Amino acid sequence: MAKFCWGLIGGGRGSQIGPAHRLGATVDGNFKFVAGALDANADEGRKFALELGLEGNRAYEDWKEMLTHEINRTDKLDLVTVATPNSTHFEISKAFLEAGFNVLCEKPMTTNIEEGEALLAIAKKSNRICAVNYGYSGFSLVREMKSMISDGVIGKIRLIKTEFAHGHHADEADANNPRVRWRYDPAQAGVSAVMADCGIHALHMACFVSGEEVLEISADFVSTIPSRELEDDAMVNFRMTGGVVGRLWSSAIALGRQHGLTIQVFGEKGGLRWAQEQPNQLYFTALGGRTQIIERGDSSLSLMAQASSRVTIGHSEGMPLAFANIYVDIAKALSSNKANTSKAVKPLYPNAEDGLRSIAAVHAAYASSEEMGKWMPAVPLSLKTGG
Amino acid sequence: MAKFCWGLIGGGRGSQIGPAHRLGATVDGNFKFVAGALDANADEGRKFALELGLEGNRAYEDWKEMLTHEINRTDKLDLVTVATPNSTHFEISKAFLEAGFNVLCEKPMTTNIEEGEALLAIAKKSNRICAVNYGYSGFSLVREMKSMISDGVIGKIRLIKTEFAHGHHADEADANNPRVRWRYDPAQAGVSAVMADCGIHALHMACFVSGEEVLEISADFVSTIPSRELEDDAMVNFRMTGGVVGRLWSSAIALGRQHGLTIQVFGEKGGLRWAQEQPNQLYFTALGGRTQIIERGDSSLSLMAQASSRVTIGHSEGMPLAFANIYVDIAKALSSNKANTSKAVKPLYPNAEDGLRSIAAVHAAYASSEEMGKWMPAVPLSLKTGG
Amino acid sequence: MAKFCWGLIGGGRGSQIGPAHRLGATVDGNFKFVAGALDANADEGRKFALELGLEGNRAYEDWKEMLTHEINRTDKLDLVTVATPNSTHFEISKAFLEAGFNVLCEKPMTTNIEEGEALLAIAKKSNRICAVNYGYSGFSLVREMKSMISDGVIGKIRLIKTEFAHGHHADEADANNPRVRWRYDPAQAGVSAVMADCGIHALHMACFVSGEEVLEISADFVSTIPSRELEDDAMVNFRMTGGVVGRLWSSAIALGRQHGLTIQVFGEKGGLRWAQEQPNQLYFTALGGRTQIIERGDSSLSLMAQASSRVTIGHSEGMPLAFANIYVDIAKALSSNKANTSKAVKPLYPNAEDGLRSIAAVHAAYASSEEMGKWMPAVPLSLKTGG
Amino acid sequence: MAKFCWGLIGGGRGSQIGPAHRLGATVDGNFKFVAGALDANADEGRKFALELGLEGNRAYEDWKEMLTHEINRTDKLDLVTVATPNSTHFEISKAFLEAGFNVLCEKPMTTNIEEGEALLAIAKKSNRICAVNYGYSGFSLVREMKSMISDGVIGKIRLIKTEFAHGHHADEADANNPRVRWRYDPAQAGVSAVMADCGIHALHMACFVSGEEVLEISADFVSTIPSRELEDDAMVNFRMTGGVVGRLWSSAIALGRQHGLTIQVFGEKGGLRWAQEQPNQLYFTALGGRTQIIERGDSSLSLMAQASSRVTIGHSEGMPLAFANIYVDIAKALSSNKANTSKAVKPLYPNAEDGLRSIAAVHAAYASSEEMGKWMPAVPLSLKTGG
Repeated sequence: MAKFCWGLIGGGRGSQIGPAHRLGATVDGNFKFVAGALDANADEGRKFALELGLEGNRAYEDWKEMLTHEINRTDKLDLVTVATPNSTHFEISKAFLEAGFNVLCEKPMTTNIEEGEALLAIAKKSNRICAVNYGYSGFSLVREMKSMISDGVIGKIRLIKTEFAHGHHADEADANNPRVRWRYDPAQAGVSAVMADCGIHALHMACFVSGEEVLEISADFVSTIPSRELEDDAMVNFRMTGGVVGRLWSSAIALGRQHGLTIQVFGEKGGLRWAQEQPNQLYFTALGGRTQIIERGDSSLSLMAQASSRVTIGHSEGMPLAFANIYVDIAKALSSNKANTSKAVKPLYPNAEDGLRSIAAVHAAYASSEEMGKWMPAVPLSLKTGG
Repeated sequence: MAKFCWGLIGGGRGSQIGPAHRLGATVDGNFKFVAGALDANADEGRKFALELGLEGNRAYEDWKEMLTHEINRTDKLDLVTVATPNSTHFEISKAFLEAGFNVLCEKPMTTNIEEGEALLAIAKKSNRICAVNYGYSGFSLVREMKSMISDGVIGKIRLIKTEFAHGHHADEADANNPRVRWRYDPAQAGVSAVMADCGIHALHMACFVSGEEVLEISADFVSTIPSRELEDDAMVNFRMTGGVVGRLWSSAIALGRQHGLTIQVFGEKGGLRWAQEQPNQLYFTALGGRTQIIERGDSSLSLMAQASSRVTIGHSEGMPLAFANIYVDIAKALSSNKANTSKAVKPLYPNAEDGLRSIAAVHAAYASSEEMGKWMPAVPLSLKTGG
Repeated sequence: MAKFCWGLIGGGRGSQIGPAHRLGATVDGNFKFVAGALDANADEGRKFALELGLEGNRAYEDWKEMLTHEINRTDKLDLVTVATPNSTHFEISKAFLEAGFNVLCEKPMTTNIEEGEALLAIAKKSNRICAVNYGYSGFSLVREMKSMISDGVIGKIRLIKTEFAHGHHADEADANNPRVRWRYDPAQAGVSAVMADCGIHALHMACFVSGEEVLEISADFVSTIPSRELEDDAMVNFRMTGGVVGRLWSSAIALGRQHGLTIQVFGEKGGLRWAQEQPNQLYFTALGGRTQIIERGDSSLSLMAQASSRVTIGHSEGMPLAFANIYVDIAKALSSNKANTSKAVKPLYPNAEDGLRSIAAVHAAYASSEEMGKWMPAVPLSLKTGG
Repeated sequence: MAKFCWGLIGGGRGSQIGPAHRLGATVDGNFKFVAGALDANADEGRKFALELGLEGNRAYEDWKEMLTHEINRTDKLDLVTVATPNSTHFEISKAFLEAGFNVLCEKPMTTNIEEGEALLAIAKKSNRICAVNYGYSGFSLVREMKSMISDGVIGKIRLIKTEFAHGHHADEADANNPRVRWRYDPAQAGVSAVMADCGIHALHMACFVSGEEVLEISADFVSTIPSRELEDDAMVNFRMTGGVVGRLWSSAIALGRQHGLTIQVFGEKGGLRWAQEQPNQLYFTALGGRTQIIERGDSSLSLMAQASSRVTIGHSEGMPLAFANIYVDIAKALSSNKANTSKAVKPLYPNAEDGLRSIAAVHAAYASSEEMGKWMPAVPLSLKTGG
């Protein structure tokens, strides 16, 4: 597959979403990270971009400079990801689309309907990709759900029940916390807080897996913390094309819940259940049958689900990130110019001693078993006297 | 932090471990993937290396060519990862260490004790890093366990109970499956099958979290499938420094278990419990107290655990890989030179229509709530007649 | 504590609720089952009552006969349980209350508000107990929730989220199944199906644990199976005294869910979570703290919770019913007048051979451990040659 | 089915096992509790027996009086349950068997092999039932396992992995706690502590579900708390008839585990997994298939499993005990001679006000739904002004 050039706007140092985009874009070798305007602080953005390995002339001060320069390059960007504050999504995405770039915009695409309509029109006219990052739709078993539903496995859908309810804004004292406060301020966040921030993912997922669209909505928004103008808890009933009934609960005050994105789809012939916090299992119950646990990575899955799984069955999807931590340990040792010679402080990465000890233990286990369980020494000779 | 040059041996197309190493090495910007000898088939290895973006003169035919060339470069490799078949680990790691390279070797470091002793001696003499990839020790909450134990939270350890038991070799018909058969053939696999392949991880984890080493072992190896020479199920009792008692079960015939790496540590003042398949929760019970659920990403965790977490609390660790699937979708659209113009086939990535529909739905929900739950239309105007 | 005389109306052979009432009433020795009118079929009811050990003159043909006779006895009933079809609850409860009896009525107490008002007035006037069996409020950890909330552990309640959603009426073909059909027929079931049958329990539980009452309601009832007149899925938003917001989902078409009664209570200082299907764990998260698992039977529980637990910590609450199955096995053997002499068919209850084998195994294990794991024979001498 | 007369020895006030036997014996109407020698303290035993409703001449001072008197009755006991301290099991069971009574003895049947052999011989000679209460074998899904295995569903068994590991003896300070101390004293407990107390259940279950017997054993007993003479942690490997390999872990120091009785059975064609703490689900994985969740009470279960289930699918098995708590509440009210008239203190059982409020709420929900979600008052008229 060809390589594409990729640029990122926003996602600077300390950003939560930035690393996920950099990893997501580059991990499969489709995109090469070549340009960035990473921070509202131009100096800081350039500095961070250089640290991440961008060349100096593509470590931009801001998105406008990026646009001006990239438009004239022969190797210009194939895709620009917009991961800036919500209120700037429209302006930046519009500018890049109109200049002929493909865009992946973080959600929400815009903060009001008028800009949304405008951006859609621009995207259509430009004939460029204008994607929106409802990233949870990328989970392998979410795609298996979509595939099963599309194949008619659960028959006509009757009801979708979805939730995105966490408890991270349950502290009334956060009225003085700027990282939380703006979310409940209409001047900064628009008409909705938790529904626009979290519930919107659940709503998109309902559409994504079912292939249906939302037609009508009845909602109950509540500010359970009185000082908040916008809702911190929302119950939304909806109706979709195809006669599907929807129920969606979103909350930011559900103490004890960490994330809480779940979806249940009930059809004439079966039901499906999935939760983001345990994304490797999908529960399927056929009418009259027993509930089956579908594992990510299973060879019986749809091509769509298999293509979106990078880790073998039974492993948590974060396994490569566990590997990454071993590499971080090694990088630290390289940086400090010290290898595994210090006896005082054992490095955090497993070293040759660990490797040898493990092998010796396996051999001791084998030898013990050969002698009916006799206890055998497991310490390698060279390490017996302290190595 | 400085950039280091990284090379990979093995991990060719279709390999399971290769992508995890490439992601793990590069995701944090510490290492740059610059050289590879990826496949026993030289042509195929070079071709795949070029696809992955290596420059032509560092896409090597084999590890020997890699060694010969890299040794003379001024920008030579800072780290070489050896992810080849087990029987070759020793020869390759030895050659690179002796030539002054740092090495990360896949487990098992060697296939017998003699080579293990030799490699440890070489590593010490070389004063280079010789790391072994017990990658599960990289999980954030495994490190939290290590930190808690080191801080004395559970007191003196009495017992460690660990398992690595799966069911993927439970089919007797696999006697004719070359991908399984070799594992139970002493000529190819050495003295042990499931203990050397899986149990060894559990054993290392027991050492890693406790800071203790294994002293003695009593084992019961069984071939539950009679045609196998090596064990497909093993129970290992062990004793560690510090008076710790260990129990380890490893199996390949445990039908219904997918991976099954778990560890429980019981001390004088508390107990800990963790499972690889749900790596984001660690269970801690203080003597006389209630069991607490410790979440990865929680701000109360140790620095060691926090430093090894890249995803915010509540998200599954594979979340960036879900993002990656959105990027794959976009890359496909770019490759086919088609954007979101086709009405017949909706692209798999969320597009501007999805973005607009979501925004309209949030606004409809807000409006409904303002009118006490009145049902409101949620379809944006421009999409009412089919867009 | 004194013994009370107890009578049951309804709950005949094959009834699901009857055995639960008989067990519930008598297990603690407070009530003695002395009178019954168990079946609409008078003969069948009397026959079953005699089988259950009632004396002939208190095995009544119907509730009217029961009322007439009991009223004149000196040892008349202290409590009458009404477990008949819903439409008869009012008439029967009214008659017994007016005659001076205490009544426990199955839910729903009546099928309409007018009769409910009337029965409440009668109960007050009678100065007798008129209890309604919202039996799930009897679970020990539900009472622990009530106690914790009452003690202010989670502060002022903001939100209660409760569900009772199962999938047992998801088959459209049940339109022809008389056991299901009547539930969706307004003529027989009144204005509501799943809300009146299931959701009502969730609603009561919200009131029970919080000590608050429902003030206002906004609901969305849906018949997802078109042939049904009454709803098989309901979403109910409500407001309670104390400013509590409520959300309740009830469904009968949620394929894959077996029972699905859950409750989550979110307050200013903490959150609580409980599910009927795993009633022995209550999850509590204090603001800023970690989630704790509270176990039924734990010595730290409130007196109210401890008083309502009959099984020690860690045992499933159904453990005594597992014991009951051993007694059933023995009763069968007694009935067939055969003891453990038949070698061909091993009785299902563990017998003396099992007892001996177990003891021999424990001793063999001890002896093996004394000899460092040496394999020891475990078969008792007398059973070595087949006993 | 005929009624049998049942007597209990031991199980006095405060006993944990006594109530489970009384419930288990009587709940199905097979046995009538007519005689008891409930306490080592004769007065206390008689007093408690009378409270439980026994007639005065069958509330015995001790088992010897019980034996002497019962043997001469025409309506003598059909079954005697022996729930006394372990060391007395042999003497009592022997005496009753030799006198022609059927006996159900608590486990362990005897405290040494010699007495076990003797009791087995007596049982055979007597031609009476000598049952041993491995009560966990009574769980419905344990019997489903047995049935499935017997039917060949998982093929020839390769391995059984079972555990009974709790953490309730993890406190070293219990060396001074008489309720714990005796268990680790060989003079009182014999050769084994946790294996004889807990592991023995796991071992019996392995035999029960497989239909195989233990042949040989290799064990590792450890006293992790040094002051203990007997083991508080045991790992037992065993071999069974039919070539089955067994692994059993039992512990009393596994902090964080409450009970921990689990069993996994792996065969040529499938695997099964069950845990006592969540007894209503059995996990079954066929070779090459997905894991299925088998629910207690499901209509597809074996007759053996269905016959041993008293509660409908989805309900926790302890549901009747929740009902029992409602009856306790009512009994308290009856005892205090107060009904639901006190406004100050609401009774714990749901009363007519609760019944009415619930009905009014269902009607309000219906009315709201009829008017498209309009908010409706839910408080019944008569309760609006405080009732």
